[in-house]
Amino acid sequence: MSSVIDDLVTELARLPGIGRKTALRLTYHLLRQPPEQGRRLAQALVALGERVRPCVRCFNLTEDQLCAICRDPRRDAGTICVVEQASDIGAIERAGEFRGVYHVLGGRLAPLDGIGPDDLTVTALIERVASGEATGELREVIIATNPSLEGEATALYVQTQLRPRGVTVTRIARGLPVGGDLEYADGVTIAQALAARRTM
Amino acid sequence: MSSVIDDLVTELARLPGIGRKTALRLTYHLLRQPPEQGRRLAQALVALGERVRPCVRCFNLTEDQLCAICRDPRRDAGTICVVEQASDIGAIERAGEFRGVYHVLGGRLAPLDGIGPDDLTVTALIERVASGEATGELREVIIATNPSLEGEATALYVQTQLRPRGVTVTRIARGLPVGGDLEYADGVTIAQALAARRTM
Repeated sequence: MSSVIDDLVTELARLPGIGRKTALRLTYHLLRQPPEQGRRLAQALVALGERVRPCVRCFNLTEDQLCAICRDPRRDAGTICVVEQASDIGAIERAGEFRGVYHVLGGRLAPLDGIGPDDLTVTALIERVASGEATGELREVIIATNPSLEGEATALYVQTQLRPRGVTVTRIARGLPVGGDLEYADGVTIAQALAARRTM
Repeated sequence: MSSVIDDLVTELARLPGIGRKTALRLTYHLLRQPPEQGRRLAQALVALGERVRPCVRCFNLTEDQLCAICRDPRRDAGTICVVEQASDIGAIERAGEFRGVYHVLGGRLAPLDGIGPDDLTVTALIERVASGEATGELREVIIATNPSLEGEATALYVQTQLRPRGVTVTRIARGLPVGGDLEYADGVTIAQALAARRTM
């Protein structure tokens, strides 16, 4: 087999859920398409690596200093929704219920994987909450980490850290199936979970 | 959502079997990997488009004038196996039974899709057979088009074209499930089909 084909198969097979056979099928598919299709995909991949970075305020992914949600004046800066990953924001946005802003922790506490509080953006969240309280703008922090064991532990940790600040801290309701993954939940479930949130 | 992320999701979702949700999952996966992984994938895609072309003899995909199989002196140039697509060669090679060379037609006769004899490399095959007979080297042409309606029609057409030349023309046995796809067949089935080939 041509080594260029082999290279592409190897790289595609590194992606989750794509084995060698699927990678081969995708490669031969691309060989049958006009070369622009592969080139556009390559450009999108390079742009992703070079231009996407975390928002300086909420750590959502963006191409600018501030992400589109932090820049939007119609979003309610009085409510901060704390999520594990930037991909969770897309899931909540698709539910169409939440008009506040976000804070991306960058993961969840997982001692077995060596992920501790210093690996998350909790310190930045505390500073955000402090300055939001100083201007009297901030009313509520909603913790929307995954309803898994580690997600719950992370929620508890964040709540403990925010307790001295006096802001209302809520947790999205267990409308999500326990052990599930926020990123893949449907909009209705997420909307219900947001509506039934309770004070921690 | 960042437009760079959206671009990549759109491009990934163009691939067969990958919907928007899978494309989004792959994109967020790449964002969690070191940027080199995306860059290597992009390079492999560009290289595929720029460097892969058909072998001047058999139309297999290669980065050189002649493909690796045509260049290999251990391959028996006395037997030519005719396949629809370059991807079918990989399937037959994995079976490990065939030591001859190949000829890629570049498709199958499909009048409904407007694909006629002139869209295939049949003329080049006839010239190859003629020069192989002139040197006394060529013994057999095995037609290994898919066991589908269109593949059978293509086999019959190729056989009709080669009949004046006097070379033995065989067809791989119907060990493959009818209506199936050679590219995805398992090695044992392909090996049996090659062993049970019969004169056309």
